[in-house]
Amino acid sequence: MDYPNDQAPGAPVRSGVPEHGRIPKYYAVKAQISALLEELGEGNVIPTERDLSERYRVARETVRQAVRELVLEGRLRRQGRNTVVAGPKLEQPLSLASYTEGVRRQGRTPGRTLVSLDRFACPKALADETGLTRGDPVWHLERVLLADEERVGLESTYVAVARVPRLDTDFEPDSSFYAYLRAQGIAFGDADERIETVLATPREALLIGTPPALPMLLIHRVSRDTAGRPLERVRSLYRGDRFSFSAHLTG
Amino acid sequence: MDYPNDQAPGAPVRSGVPEHGRIPKYYAVKAQISALLEELGEGNVIPTERDLSERYRVARETVRQAVRELVLEGRLRRQGRNTVVAGPKLEQPLSLASYTEGVRRQGRTPGRTLVSLDRFACPKALADETGLTRGDPVWHLERVLLADEERVGLESTYVAVARVPRLDTDFEPDSSFYAYLRAQGIAFGDADERIETVLATPREALLIGTPPALPMLLIHRVSRDTAGRPLERVRSLYRGDRFSFSAHLTG
Repeated sequence: MDYPNDQAPGAPVRSGVPEHGRIPKYYAVKAQISALLEELGEGNVIPTERDLSERYRVARETVRQAVRELVLEGRLRRQGRNTVVAGPKLEQPLSLASYTEGVRRQGRTPGRTLVSLDRFACPKALADETGLTRGDPVWHLERVLLADEERVGLESTYVAVARVPRLDTDFEPDSSFYAYLRAQGIAFGDADERIETVLATPREALLIGTPPALPMLLIHRVSRDTAGRPLERVRSLYRGDRFSFSAHLTG
Repeated sequence: MDYPNDQAPGAPVRSGVPEHGRIPKYYAVKAQISALLEELGEGNVIPTERDLSERYRVARETVRQAVRELVLEGRLRRQGRNTVVAGPKLEQPLSLASYTEGVRRQGRTPGRTLVSLDRFACPKALADETGLTRGDPVWHLERVLLADEERVGLESTYVAVARVPRLDTDFEPDSSFYAYLRAQGIAFGDADERIETVLATPREALLIGTPPALPMLLIHRVSRDTAGRPLERVRSLYRGDRFSFSAHLTG
């Protein structure tokens, strides 16, 4: 036991023992399965529920709860009928760089699938948030985000039609929107971001292919160009079991 | 319907209707309760489970699932035997400023309760992560974070004993550790942060007083002083239903 209370700061399953000493049974099993995952290594199939319940002499429901939490946390993932040891979470920088660049930097292949491209009149809330003019035409571009063909997130971008009037005809929806903006001579100046955890809605879960109520990381972004004019409002939803976000802070 | 697909970017309950049109019953109820919360306003008690199940003509279990998700998302909170409409999430800046400063800026009163202060030999993993020397004595300071007396998080700080040798005798554990460092003439230079969503362990849930398996935001920090020397490793766990984090990004 290297750390006090066995509380290693980065440990995947941290000490779960309450001070009163009553450890929930499923949690003890979870810690044991967690140790097993370390031995097995990424990509390998774990034993069946039945095998695990026999090995640890607990009910299958207890094993199921432990496995469910390990899946929610991204330590295990479902692969067809099997459950396999997951790799580490993708680490995206909180920066003005795009999703595309962040995923590439980790040696993964980014991709996107178009869900919808709509044109509508800027509502009051969006105008207040961004500085766009209420009633002006706005694009809403919704895309599923992919990493190595796996669906990992859902991105909604709101941008004034006046900025990119031909978005519906000359933009490839599976390409980088930021690269498209740059090609139009539009450069990012700054952005405000806010990150929170939310549960996937049934629609989102369906689009991303996750279990419903999986904890997600939701990033709100409002960005401006180099002249300080409103550029876009983005709502990016990432699988909480597959992503973490990093930032470098200076005084 | 202001937005395409009714997908307002900041809406508290977003459109949950899958394309195939089958809306889970609990989700339809959740959307109705969500609208009710807007009418009631912060701090007000919602009707009982029985009342809601009669009002929406669904089973109590259906109401329970809807309410459970709204609690997990921080839209409702338990208050004794009642369930009340929650206020907005606290928004902490991702910055070198302390928890204390972030909470104060929002007009709330920050506080901390000491869980433990231990001294131990720096293990390999911590040495690798921080640049501290393996085997050197290290403090582990664990505190519950409070906002207006409410328990909202749990913070573990690891710092070399050589840096703050009298931490166990002349530091008030309910005060700001960063203010203490400044008083010792130690100034922050930079830090790397990583943010992810995790489930609370039973021990953490007990210490923070949350339901187990509540989605939390976990922030890992490794910081250095102005000379670039390792300063601290922090693991801060925040209630996902009570906090969001913000950053300002520039090119």
